[in-house]
Amino acid sequence: MTTCLIIGGGGMLGQGLAGALTARGTLAGAALSHLTLFDVVPARAPEGGIPVSVETGDLCAPGEAERLVSSRPDVIYHLAAIVSGEAERDFEKGYRINLDGTRNLFEAIRAENGRSGYCPRVVFTSSLAVFGIPLPDVIGDDYVVTPLSSYGTQKAIGELLLADYSRRGFFDGIGLRLPTIVIRPGKPNAAASGFFSSILREPLAGKEAVLPVGTDVRHWLASPRAAVGYLVHAGDLDTTAMGGRRNITLPGVSVTVGEQIEALRKVAGDEAVALIRHQPDPAVEAIISTWPKAFDTRRALDLGFAGDASIDAIITAYLEDHAGAAS
Amino acid sequence: MTTCLIIGGGGMLGQGLAGALTARGTLAGAALSHLTLFDVVPARAPEGGIPVSVETGDLCAPGEAERLVSSRPDVIYHLAAIVSGEAERDFEKGYRINLDGTRNLFEAIRAENGRSGYCPRVVFTSSLAVFGIPLPDVIGDDYVVTPLSSYGTQKAIGELLLADYSRRGFFDGIGLRLPTIVIRPGKPNAAASGFFSSILREPLAGKEAVLPVGTDVRHWLASPRAAVGYLVHAGDLDTTAMGGRRNITLPGVSVTVGEQIEALRKVAGDEAVALIRHQPDPAVEAIISTWPKAFDTRRALDLGFAGDASIDAIITAYLEDHAGAAS
Repeated sequence: MTTCLIIGGGGMLGQGLAGALTARGTLAGAALSHLTLFDVVPARAPEGGIPVSVETGDLCAPGEAERLVSSRPDVIYHLAAIVSGEAERDFEKGYRINLDGTRNLFEAIRAENGRSGYCPRVVFTSSLAVFGIPLPDVIGDDYVVTPLSSYGTQKAIGELLLADYSRRGFFDGIGLRLPTIVIRPGKPNAAASGFFSSILREPLAGKEAVLPVGTDVRHWLASPRAAVGYLVHAGDLDTTAMGGRRNITLPGVSVTVGEQIEALRKVAGDEAVALIRHQPDPAVEAIISTWPKAFDTRRALDLGFAGDASIDAIITAYLEDHAGAAS
Repeated sequence: MTTCLIIGGGGMLGQGLAGALTARGTLAGAALSHLTLFDVVPARAPEGGIPVSVETGDLCAPGEAERLVSSRPDVIYHLAAIVSGEAERDFEKGYRINLDGTRNLFEAIRAENGRSGYCPRVVFTSSLAVFGIPLPDVIGDDYVVTPLSSYGTQKAIGELLLADYSRRGFFDGIGLRLPTIVIRPGKPNAAASGFFSSILREPLAGKEAVLPVGTDVRHWLASPRAAVGYLVHAGDLDTTAMGGRRNITLPGVSVTVGEQIEALRKVAGDEAVALIRHQPDPAVEAIISTWPKAFDTRRALDLGFAGDASIDAIITAYLEDHAGAAS
C-alpha cells in the first residue's frame, strides 16, 4: 500500500496528478491507499474510490512541514512554488516560499528519517528557468545551469539540496525540469509564456488570440497530459540508475510558433488561424529570446520518461481532455 | 580610498591575501585605507603602513553579519568555510556555516543596499568540489555542476546566490573555483588532498612523505601565490564582461603525481624522491578517482586571471616564499 502527499495539490499539475493517480489506483508498485492534497487554498478532491484528505496551510509556517511529514507518506510530490514573475517582483517572498519552504520540507523529512528511518520518494518540480544564456541551440544533459531569474535560482538551489539529501539517504529524490506546458486550460494569463497556449486554445474556442513574438520563435513544449505522466513515472521509477544526478530535463517537442500555427490550421482550418492577431511586444520578445529552444534529453529517455509525439499530438490530447473546448 | 574586509582572514589564503594587499597598498583602483580581518580566532595582522582591525566572531550569530557590513567596506572577501571532511561528518554544521553564514552575509549587504545604495565588490571562494563524476578529461566552462559532497553542494548554492544577488544589483560579486593549493605550508594534514602537497614539501625538508595513490593520478593544482593573485585580481576586476555568469573556474596546472615527483627530482635530486614512500590507500584512491583532472579555463584567462606556468614554477615559488624550508 502506498500513501501519497501532493504539496501544491490545487494547481493545474497537482489536480491533473491527483486525477491520474486516483484513476490508476497504484503508485510506486503498490495500491494507492490514501492521497493528501495540500495547498494554500482547498484543493478539489478527485472522484474515485481512494480516500483523499484536503488540507490547507503555509509550508513556511513553523511546524507545518513537520506536521505534513508526520504521517510518513511514501511518496511526496512538491509542486508548490510562486511563479517567476512574482519571485522577480518580490525578492523576499520568492526566497521564502521557493527556497525556505522547500528546505523546511526537506529538513522535516530528514528529522523524521533520523527518528524512524523514514525515507520517502520525493518528486520536486524544477524548471527550464535554471538555464540562462548563452545557450546552444540544443542543450545536452551536461550543460551548465546558470539561472538569470530569482525563480530559476531558487529552483536550481532546490535541485542541489534534493541531490544532497538523496545522496545522504534522507530521502529518495527526483527533480524534474518540466517543459513549458501547452495547451494550458483556462483563460489567457499575464505570464510571458502564456501566448504559447493562448494562440492555440483561444482560436480552438473561436476566440481571438494575441501573438506578441515572431513566428520563428522556437521553444520546448509538453502537454499537461505528458507532464502528469512524468510525475506519475517519477513516483514509480527505480532511481538506482540515476547515480548522483537526481535532476533531469524532461522530453518535449521543439517547435516554432509558425509550426504551432500550421498544426492549428490542420485541426481547425484557416478561420481559426485568422483569429491570431500578431502584435509584437518588444518586452516579451526580449524575455523569450533568452529561453531554451531545444534539448537532447537522453538521460530522461533512458529512464523511461516518454513525452508527446508532436505538436499535433499535443493539440489532439487537449481536444480529447477538454471536449467542448473547440467551438 | 578602498576599505576591505576579509572574512576568514586567519586562514592560509586570508593571511596570504592580507599580506599581499598590505604590500601592494592598493585595491580596486585606489589606495587601500583600511583592512579588517575577521575570523573565529584572532588573525595575525600583516606588517605595513595600512591600518588593520582584527575581529573575532561567528558569521552565523544573530546580528554579526549586519555589524560587519555596517562599516560598508568597499571590497568584501568571503573565504570562511568549514572544510569538506567536516561538512560531510557534521551535516547540520556544514549547512549552518557554509550556507546560512553565506546567506546571512549576503542578506546583510542587501539590507544595507536598501538603506544606503551600498554595493560592494564581493569575492567568494568556491571549490572544484562543485563538480561530480561523470566528468570529461578536460572540463569546459559550460560543464554542469553536480556536487557529490555536502561541502560542494553548499559552495554551489553560494555560487547561485552570489549570481542572483549580483544580477539584482545588491552587490557586485565574483565566485572563484580555486584549484587544489600546492604546496600548502605547514604540517601534513588529514585531508584527502593533503598528499599533493606533502609529497613535495616533506622531501624538500628532508622528511619522509606517504603517497597513498598511484603515480598516474592527475589533478588540477595552483600555488598559494597564484591563489592569492586570483583573489587580488578579483578585487580589481571590471565585472561587466562577466555578464550573468559570476562564477568561474580558475587556471591551474594539470599534472600527474609522477610529473610532480619528476619536478621534485629536478630541484632536490634522487635522495629527495627516495623519501616518498608509496603506500596505497584504497579509501583515498576512491575519493581521488572522482576528482577533476583538468579544465579549459578560457573565461578566466579572458578575464585576466593568470596562473602558474608549471609544476616546476610552483615548487620554485614555494622555495622562494619559504626560504629555509629546503633541507
